[in-house]
Amino acid sequence: MEINNLSKLERHNLNNHKSFVLWFTGLSGAGKSTLANSLENKLYDHGIRTYILDGDNIRKGLNKDLGFSDDARVENIRRIGEVSKLFVDAGAVTLVAFISPFIADRKIARELVEKDEFIEIFVDCSLEVCESRDVKGLYKKARSGELKMFTGIDSAYEKPVNPELIIDTANKSIEQCVEQIYNYLSTKGLIK
Amino acid sequence: MEINNLSKLERHNLNNHKSFVLWFTGLSGAGKSTLANSLENKLYDHGIRTYILDGDNIRKGLNKDLGFSDDARVENIRRIGEVSKLFVDAGAVTLVAFISPFIADRKIARELVEKDEFIEIFVDCSLEVCESRDVKGLYKKARSGELKMFTGIDSAYEKPVNPELIIDTANKSIEQCVEQIYNYLSTKGLIK
Repeated sequence: MEINNLSKLERHNLNNHKSFVLWFTGLSGAGKSTLANSLENKLYDHGIRTYILDGDNIRKGLNKDLGFSDDARVENIRRIGEVSKLFVDAGAVTLVAFISPFIADRKIARELVEKDEFIEIFVDCSLEVCESRDVKGLYKKARSGELKMFTGIDSAYEKPVNPELIIDTANKSIEQCVEQIYNYLSTKGLIK
Repeated sequence: MEINNLSKLERHNLNNHKSFVLWFTGLSGAGKSTLANSLENKLYDHGIRTYILDGDNIRKGLNKDLGFSDDARVENIRRIGEVSKLFVDAGAVTLVAFISPFIADRKIARELVEKDEFIEIFVDCSLEVCESRDVKGLYKKARSGELKMFTGIDSAYEKPVNPELIIDTANKSIEQCVEQIYNYLSTKGLIK
């Protein structure tokens, strides 16, 4: 019996679509998970296999041993980058929705996959708008000091210098934002 | 825009197959990766989406910060269990090929997924046979003391008490072993 490891290309052939990382970065409350979920639904309707890595499934599982110190954040993103790479290798369009505040860590994640497989999406929304939304009440806790090391308050957020996409969630509807990403993927030939 | 998180069932519907973990455990050289690779090729030919987690992609990536002490082995398997869960959730038949020597750790991995989603496959091959194969020359290094904490030599291997499958690679061909697993999956309704 001849045994070859399955290649990524063979998985793409089976799925009839490519695989890549959509890395959503931005402040808490900017709309990363909302965008990822909406886009995933749209991709699903087009027969595209996806998976979302976000706080819900990563911070409560794989990375439940990690806190929120700078070191822990670095390790958090390192592991997410490695898991993204596995999912891309497996043939899934991988949507990562994490604040991922540091440029250096996002760069490490980018370099784990091939050049055209990493699309950094800066979910651009001002601290003022995010704080006014405060869907989870986290900003309030951060301002009161109950929550330490909160990005934008007492921990830095480093904006992407040259992201593939900038999405302005403060001034556009979710539908418009999703359309913008979908059109980008289509134009770049990443989806049909 | 209504936003629902995609469910595992929706992913199964898109793929037209279920997802579950095939956990291959056994000594180094027992044939775990060989079996996983052969089975993956067969499943691929039947249009089933799979992914293999093994030393090649995990130990060099996600778990490259871990060594081989007992603690590191526990953390190694914990993370692999968590990643398996993500892959099953994403809709992939997930083949895990690691020595995974400790019963307690395999139990933790099992409990992360649903009851019928974890198939423990004991790749049963005596230490003598594995050592005589010594494909990677690891047993020789372990016997000489060059390699410490080697399972079967100076680190324990705890056999599964009640695995779903026992595969006798010492006395059966790879083809026969793959057929045995494939038939099991078919009989249990895990694959069509």
